[in-house]
Amino acid sequence: MQKENLLIVADSDHDADMLYAVRMFVPDPFIYFRHEGKPHIVVSDLEYDRARKHAKHCKVLSFPHYQQVAKRNGTKRPGMAHVIRSVLKERGIKKINVPSSFPYGLAKQLRDLKVKVKITGACFPERELKSSEELKKISAALMMAEVGLAEAIEALKRSKVAKDGRLFRNNTPLTSERLRAIIDTAIIQAGGLASHTIVAGGNQACDPHEQGYGALKANQPIILDVFPRSQRTGYFGDITRTVVKGRASDSVRKMYEAVAKGQEIAFGKLGPGRSGQEVHKGVKIFFDGSGFKTGKIKGRMQGFFHGTGQGVGLEIHEAPRLGQTSSDLLKAGHVVTIEPGLYYPGIGGIRLEDMAYLTKKGPVNLTQFEKSLEV
Amino acid sequence: MQKENLLIVADSDHDADMLYAVRMFVPDPFIYFRHEGKPHIVVSDLEYDRARKHAKHCKVLSFPHYQQVAKRNGTKRPGMAHVIRSVLKERGIKKINVPSSFPYGLAKQLRDLKVKVKITGACFPERELKSSEELKKISAALMMAEVGLAEAIEALKRSKVAKDGRLFRNNTPLTSERLRAIIDTAIIQAGGLASHTIVAGGNQACDPHEQGYGALKANQPIILDVFPRSQRTGYFGDITRTVVKGRASDSVRKMYEAVAKGQEIAFGKLGPGRSGQEVHKGVKIFFDGSGFKTGKIKGRMQGFFHGTGQGVGLEIHEAPRLGQTSSDLLKAGHVVTIEPGLYYPGIGGIRLEDMAYLTKKGPVNLTQFEKSLEV
Repeated sequence: MQKENLLIVADSDHDADMLYAVRMFVPDPFIYFRHEGKPHIVVSDLEYDRARKHAKHCKVLSFPHYQQVAKRNGTKRPGMAHVIRSVLKERGIKKINVPSSFPYGLAKQLRDLKVKVKITGACFPERELKSSEELKKISAALMMAEVGLAEAIEALKRSKVAKDGRLFRNNTPLTSERLRAIIDTAIIQAGGLASHTIVAGGNQACDPHEQGYGALKANQPIILDVFPRSQRTGYFGDITRTVVKGRASDSVRKMYEAVAKGQEIAFGKLGPGRSGQEVHKGVKIFFDGSGFKTGKIKGRMQGFFHGTGQGVGLEIHEAPRLGQTSSDLLKAGHVVTIEPGLYYPGIGGIRLEDMAYLTKKGPVNLTQFEKSLEV
Repeated sequence: MQKENLLIVADSDHDADMLYAVRMFVPDPFIYFRHEGKPHIVVSDLEYDRARKHAKHCKVLSFPHYQQVAKRNGTKRPGMAHVIRSVLKERGIKKINVPSSFPYGLAKQLRDLKVKVKITGACFPERELKSSEELKKISAALMMAEVGLAEAIEALKRSKVAKDGRLFRNNTPLTSERLRAIIDTAIIQAGGLASHTIVAGGNQACDPHEQGYGALKANQPIILDVFPRSQRTGYFGDITRTVVKGRASDSVRKMYEAVAKGQEIAFGKLGPGRSGQEVHKGVKIFFDGSGFKTGKIKGRMQGFFHGTGQGVGLEIHEAPRLGQTSSDLLKAGHVVTIEPGLYYPGIGGIRLEDMAYLTKKGPVNLTQFEKSLEV
């Protein structure tokens, strides 16, 4: 049990700490506070009964009730800050910790109302380290990603190649948009929600966050990066595969082999006590040594110019980071992505991504999905 | 052109101001600032080329470049705050406005680095008032919601009723989860992404934000609340219908008629210069006068205990609010939901929601979808 007082004001659809604290999706900002180890939430009439049902571990308080309290104490139009003051005052709390993401405007209002707020480190440091229960939820979300990916690869396999190289399925062009809809639909059936799924072919894929658009073509690499959130639990899964419909060129094949080897190198360096930076540098040095240079060419970044991976949980990108400037140390309980990539305009982009669970004995690869370049 | 200096640090997947500013989805927090009316963004190598392509109206600066600048000036491990200081210093900017949602931790770091940050009102006050271009994007998102809703109602129509009242489709139970997947799938095909779609029958629907789970039954109201986001533009659409498969009881029918009348009353009160509170109170008074009381009964809120509606745009809930304690004034250009509801455990919940566009001449109902209780 954590003893330190804590105050969060956020919605739980987007704020991972809030979802971690209450385990219930609430679309509008509300108040969470921990006092003497006991979690409390203050919600509107709209959420009150649902909160009592779904957040049984929290003491559920009524926002309108504390608005009335503030009114009785002379506040004409009590807002969020006044309600917070009333709630804390009733419990004799004069100062409270808040996360560094706490809204600055609200912090200032509270200060004006003589409530002292102090920035704390991570709200729930234990959120980084996944319990066996959380590991199951992440694995379930990863499975949803794999289901979507399998559908995409099946559609690519069954597609036909036109004379101009464009892919067709059921006599209509198989575009990035259409393949993305196939993936996202399969994920919905599996209970997830995928946003910004990447289906990017050819030079488009050289921007690692380009979602992809328009015609897909044979004989060039297509990056499929799928990262759904479980609609029930809020946990994410994340996987990337790169495939070629038809034949891969020698240079694409060499890049693919290097990226696959880069993944192995990263897995070899994963372990409690190692640093995220160390893992990343291992991959980077291997790429450099294999002739896959990174840097700006003709004003454009090429090579391996993103991190090797990061934590995944209730956020798709969370601590720890495995990158060039990361100072994060790896611990047993971390779940991280391992996703090296190489990008060269004119050839295309290759990225492979698995998820690793770190145990005291070393990493466990959570990802089952096969890696095969040509489909 | 806005002259006031402005600084935002956020991702644009979730922060609507950031998306409004850059018109490009970026999953990790980055820097936006406006100086002498000109928008600038500072992004990682990973986003640099994509940003130059998709955010042409912004001057795109490199985050690693300014990390180097900070290093040359003696900072060992330059983070977000140091980069911001370097960028601003280069332009002779000593103080800058930030939104009230600006992260308190970062605000403190900047203060320690002698950068003065001042909380401003809305970053983009014009974001409340929708241009004709934005109206088209909202209407497109609403159309996606209507497509999803149509599929749901079709599935209900075609479902069979078992002896125990449960609905079946293709010989398997038609549950809330299954009907939600039907809606969300249709929305994906239409280019949207729906999260937390509500399919709640019977007493479940008495919690207005309950998503719904388990078997759906004949002869009781089912609330279908569908609010997808366009995957391309980020704008939301929002619609709610309540339907009964089979026959509605007299009390359900009376509630439905009252809610439909409540909507009409709200539309009648919509107009530039009116207040959001006034619209809400009109509906509330009508419900009270028609015998549909609101309040706590047996410890549970019943009746009409949420707002009448709110603005919709790049956020699903944004200004203005139409509720009990709202001080917002309505203006031409606002797009708002009108979604009164009544909830009585033992009978069920009824909510109807349309979207209204406010013009100088009055409101235009953007929602085409029919209202019919029994399907």
